Amino acid sequence: MNPVEVILAKRRGEEHAHDDLEAFVLGFVGGEIPDYQVAAWLMAVCWRGMSERETADLTRIMAASGDQLDLAALPHTLDKHSTGGVGDKTTIVLAPLVASLGGTIAKMSGRGLGHTGGTIDKLESIPGFRATLSESEFLRQARDIGVAVTGQSGELAPADGLLYALRDATATVASVPLIASSVMSKKLASGARSLVLDVKVGHGAFMKSEEEARALAGAMVAIGRHAGRNVRAVLSNMDEPLGNAVGHAVEVIEALATLRGDGPPDVRALVLVLATEVLQASGLDLDEGDVAAALADGRAAERFERWIAAQGGDVSALDALEVAPNTSVWRATSSGELLALDAERVGLAVARLGGGRRRKGDAIDLAVGAHVHVKVGDHVSAGDALVTLLHRGGSAVEDALLALEGAARIGSSEVRRPLVLDVVR
Amino acid sequence: MNPVEVILAKRRGEEHAHDDLEAFVLGFVGGEIPDYQVAAWLMAVCWRGMSERETADLTRIMAASGDQLDLAALPHTLDKHSTGGVGDKTTIVLAPLVASLGGTIAKMSGRGLGHTGGTIDKLESIPGFRATLSESEFLRQARDIGVAVTGQSGELAPADGLLYALRDATATVASVPLIASSVMSKKLASGARSLVLDVKVGHGAFMKSEEEARALAGAMVAIGRHAGRNVRAVLSNMDEPLGNAVGHAVEVIEALATLRGDGPPDVRALVLVLATEVLQASGLDLDEGDVAAALADGRAAERFERWIAAQGGDVSALDALEVAPNTSVWRATSSGELLALDAERVGLAVARLGGGRRRKGDAIDLAVGAHVHVKVGDHVSAGDALVTLLHRGGSAVEDALLALEGAARIGSSEVRRPLVLDVVR
Repeated sequence: MNPVEVILAKRRGEEHAHDDLEAFVLGFVGGEIPDYQVAAWLMAVCWRGMSERETADLTRIMAASGDQLDLAALPHTLDKHSTGGVGDKTTIVLAPLVASLGGTIAKMSGRGLGHTGGTIDKLESIPGFRATLSESEFLRQARDIGVAVTGQSGELAPADGLLYALRDATATVASVPLIASSVMSKKLASGARSLVLDVKVGHGAFMKSEEEARALAGAMVAIGRHAGRNVRAVLSNMDEPLGNAVGHAVEVIEALATLRGDGPPDVRALVLVLATEVLQASGLDLDEGDVAAALADGRAAERFERWIAAQGGDVSALDALEVAPNTSVWRATSSGELLALDAERVGLAVARLGGGRRRKGDAIDLAVGAHVHVKVGDHVSAGDALVTLLHRGGSAVEDALLALEGAARIGSSEVRRPLVLDVVR
Repeated sequence: MNPVEVILAKRRGEEHAHDDLEAFVLGFVGGEIPDYQVAAWLMAVCWRGMSERETADLTRIMAASGDQLDLAALPHTLDKHSTGGVGDKTTIVLAPLVASLGGTIAKMSGRGLGHTGGTIDKLESIPGFRATLSESEFLRQARDIGVAVTGQSGELAPADGLLYALRDATATVASVPLIASSVMSKKLASGARSLVLDVKVGHGAFMKSEEEARALAGAMVAIGRHAGRNVRAVLSNMDEPLGNAVGHAVEVIEALATLRGDGPPDVRALVLVLATEVLQASGLDLDEGDVAAALADGRAAERFERWIAAQGGDVSALDALEVAPNTSVWRATSSGELLALDAERVGLAVARLGGGRRRKGDAIDLAVGAHVHVKVGDHVSAGDALVTLLHRGGSAVEDALLALEGAARIGSSEVRRPLVLDVVR
């Protein structure tokens, strides 16, 4: 394998043989192929694309570049991944819910960066919750109660980490096969047989158009097919934050309400679709009614408490999580129907209150957040409260309110996207 | 200027503002912008291209990245550049010819690499010839006799040298704006007001098709227009070596014959077109008849001897240059019309005899070479001598004959390309 010939082949739009691609990627990981050659190749991939087979090969090569979890001894292993949304607490609801219905969810989860929060950070707002489990603790807990969530290990798909850093510095992030293989490499390495992907569409999402989201969903489902995993993708709306709470503790509180059969309608509806799809993909003969019953009759909430307790969390504190004491209200300046509420700006406002990281490793305030009072389709009048910020005072509040400026689109009714746009199987 | 934004803009097919392009290129030269970012950008340029204005800006930025020769005090300064051919001794004829007609040619010239020879190497087959002149010697000689040729300085357009090395390692050499700006940056830095480009087309040339050659010629002429230089480009045929001699001493001998009004018809014809075009471009009111007269009446040959003597060459040795003593003949294996003689293979055969470099700095044998006995259109019979190799014996001869295998295409007549395909002004 000559690296220049690999780059040239992709430049010409040719398909790489598996072994050439493997030697190229592992040569980069091993330091034998310099980053400038990989950077040129990445841009050629953005230009020419990759076939389904090539994308699946790249994904498996990256997945095999580090540790791979073996979950074969566990029943109905499944996983869920979101491309990143604001106010998205679905994992916190879905994980105990599917466990209560016979699924096993042994999940690696990330921390937040920029305007979106991470599941692990949110769970840490519960006193005592331990986000880092050893591999044996993790597997034992998954076997015993069907649910375990741990912070991502540095050894999972290290090739993806190296490639992603290079993509970030070379304007080669936006590429369907590169995004799809990056997401799926970590999912393949983490071992679950079935996977549901929540591909967010809208202004607050990485994929701004339904067309792009559909292409990404199709690519990820195809990778699953090539790799012998059952993958389904749900395209969901991110024209507004999901639910009403945005932050860390406030999102756990909303997730808990949903687990108890209550919670905002959109959170509940999305959880039901995602959970039903992934349970069916894992071979369990359940419909949405069965899944809703587990929320209604307390099984999901009971499994949540067992899970939190297993990871050291203080269950007795769940109904008294610390929330920042001060409030500032952001109000409508005109009247009409709410057409969209820019989720990215709401996420940014919370980040500016101290609830978001600029760089990996930054400390964050889990008690700050926002409550969104209006949903798309609601009628609002000038002066109505749209968002209440929960904060600790100081100059950050002004910055957060500035971030919200222009975030609400208020006007007269037009065709709106539904919450769930499509399911790709 | 944010380098990621520059890459992203080119990825999207946008045109760079001059200042962004300058900051990006000079940032790379200065070591502040890493090579991987430049590599991604180069591939994006291969993908999206560059506008005429952008290409001209890039060329001037590279030309200004190092020393620039000031030839403003000299009359009718002109230069000639070839994209690289086999058997191409036109510079050796053209330089004293244009000087004898009032032009000033103060030329930087390269050494050979791979299958093509360099003018400087060829001239060194004349005993005593000095290829390296100081800047003041060079300028004085150009003023006194109108012709000076020196080896290329390392300080001419260093940005081009750095970019070229990166392109070579990242499969981004083949790009019309990048090739055009690379050639023209060195030409702009070396100061001549007028320039004729000999763009070779055919199997032995960098540009395999007339379409590619025409695009490159157009791009280089446009750069000249933007930079206030008079540039013309001649598209010439490289479906066979130029003339009959391929090597170093043998090519000087053939150039001398042409300077004395003799020489192969194709060498003479190409020199007349190139010289006439560049003399006219430099503002001299001369036609091809005037140029031919300087070959016929001895003015060109006389200027050649003055030039060689000025650079230390032994003029009395010109008719007794050392040529390798042994010969091996390569013969036709079928009969018919010669349709093409692969110039690249003939060049490679001479290189294998010791007449070419694999790497910069390799020593070469100036006395070895080849005599081509047939030209495209000639009728040949099986057993006829096609090429005679001039060598010093040893195993290299077998290797050289192997290089020639399959080089001659013999068949029945088809439409052939003329020597001069077009002139782009």
